[in-house]
Amino acid sequence: MTRTVYVNGDYVPEAEAKVSVFDRGFLFADGVYEVTSVLDGKLIDFDGHAKRLERSLGELEIGVPLSREDLLEVHRQLIARNELTDGLIYLQITRGAADRDFIYPAADTPQTVVLFTQAKPGLADSPVARTGLKVISIDDIRWGRRDIKTVQLLYPSMGKMMAKAAGADDAWMVEDGVVTEGTSNNAYIVKNGKIITRHLGTEILHGITRAAVLRFAREAQMEVEERAFSIEEAQDADEAFITSASSFVTPVVEIDGATVGTGKPGFVATRLREIYLDESRKKSV
Amino acid sequence: MTRTVYVNGDYVPEAEAKVSVFDRGFLFADGVYEVTSVLDGKLIDFDGHAKRLERSLGELEIGVPLSREDLLEVHRQLIARNELTDGLIYLQITRGAADRDFIYPAADTPQTVVLFTQAKPGLADSPVARTGLKVISIDDIRWGRRDIKTVQLLYPSMGKMMAKAAGADDAWMVEDGVVTEGTSNNAYIVKNGKIITRHLGTEILHGITRAAVLRFAREAQMEVEERAFSIEEAQDADEAFITSASSFVTPVVEIDGATVGTGKPGFVATRLREIYLDESRKKSV
Repeated sequence: MTRTVYVNGDYVPEAEAKVSVFDRGFLFADGVYEVTSVLDGKLIDFDGHAKRLERSLGELEIGVPLSREDLLEVHRQLIARNELTDGLIYLQITRGAADRDFIYPAADTPQTVVLFTQAKPGLADSPVARTGLKVISIDDIRWGRRDIKTVQLLYPSMGKMMAKAAGADDAWMVEDGVVTEGTSNNAYIVKNGKIITRHLGTEILHGITRAAVLRFAREAQMEVEERAFSIEEAQDADEAFITSASSFVTPVVEIDGATVGTGKPGFVATRLREIYLDESRKKSV
Repeated sequence: MTRTVYVNGDYVPEAEAKVSVFDRGFLFADGVYEVTSVLDGKLIDFDGHAKRLERSLGELEIGVPLSREDLLEVHRQLIARNELTDGLIYLQITRGAADRDFIYPAADTPQTVVLFTQAKPGLADSPVARTGLKVISIDDIRWGRRDIKTVQLLYPSMGKMMAKAAGADDAWMVEDGVVTEGTSNNAYIVKNGKIITRHLGTEILHGITRAAVLRFAREAQMEVEERAFSIEEAQDADEAFITSASSFVTPVVEIDGATVGTGKPGFVATRLREIYLDESRKKSV
């Protein structure tokens, strides 16, 4: 089955899903994105993603081309037209197409809106949730506004390739001696029952899954501390894990070759994954 | 006259010049570019741009899709088909289109190659060369590999907008108390006859025009020092200027509201612009 992709109001076969070479997303990485998980044909945390999308657009002074209701309708259309049960919906909005100029085009330039699905059968039952991930550390050399979810993803992509070349699954990025986040996820450690994760700021993405998981953790009476930690502290922790919209909560069992805790997924990460999936499914739309 | 654009081997009308929404240039800013000036229908410093392009591709492990000869032929075809006398040729190469994944696609994925022209009548006779530019300083928050000419240009674009909002023409970026470069150009000052510009490294783009201008300056017995300088030192200089492929050598007469030198284009910048244009035209192809 060929995918149906949404491009600027039209639902088209993926081979016909194109944008102008003058699109500012293509020429200047002048665009933002969101990835929303779909489980059992329903959207996980749609409101959180829609709200962050609006914030990203606002930070870059890009207009909001679709209301939240219209955006939800496009997501649902794509689920239906692609018969998507488990997978992802990727959404990208750019400042639109205009002759190349660093200066932004006229404010009435229509934004470019693209959405497509990725089928991931068994997304919530990933084998790595049971075995855990191996990560390496790499320098964080990204730009300074990581709180805006822009498509400037070349370095995270390079980071995943560095991890692969090192025989690992992913990379955690380090700046000024402490971990910022993973290449496409937030990073956590657990020590003496306390969950530790980097505080919010311009240095990291404000994960939608991060916010939900911390809320669930606090509701479950788990202690949470939001502060930076080093790779050495992480290697010495009882547990480590990541969160993201597509990996939910996934344990990390090795960091730069050092085993974390028992080397098996820990209790806290496993429990948080269960809670997150249960609660998110209940509220899925 | 509608522009003719080159996309992956085809010459097409600009309205039909499109790339897949799955192009990694669009989704990950996973691509590099070059801009070559055209004067009197001939290419300025084509070899320098072609060589740097190959270096950028190599640093990102993207294959080289066209030989230097074929690339020159595409440039010449675009000049002819668009009857371009004075202007620019923009070239972008990305890692190609593939289903979205941070991991690079298979090595045999065809790269995306796009080239288009921009007519700029009187490019070498710009009025700002006679009046000089006003620049402001902004923090340099770009990623760490600015020596690779990637399309991650959102912050330089934001920088030009910040300059515009401040009533200036452009911005110089400052990191660790010293100037790295302009948003789309290299930055220079002149003090007591000596030309001072940032040394090469990963912090700045290795300008093709920079290399040529420094060579011409040394051949003309001018003293050149390659080191970092602060905004305060620049404000106190006798002259300031920028270089880039499209602005050649352009004087800067005001920095953060402070007049540089006499407030008029200086002798060194004016002379270097003349030499650069004369010599480059002689060698244009």
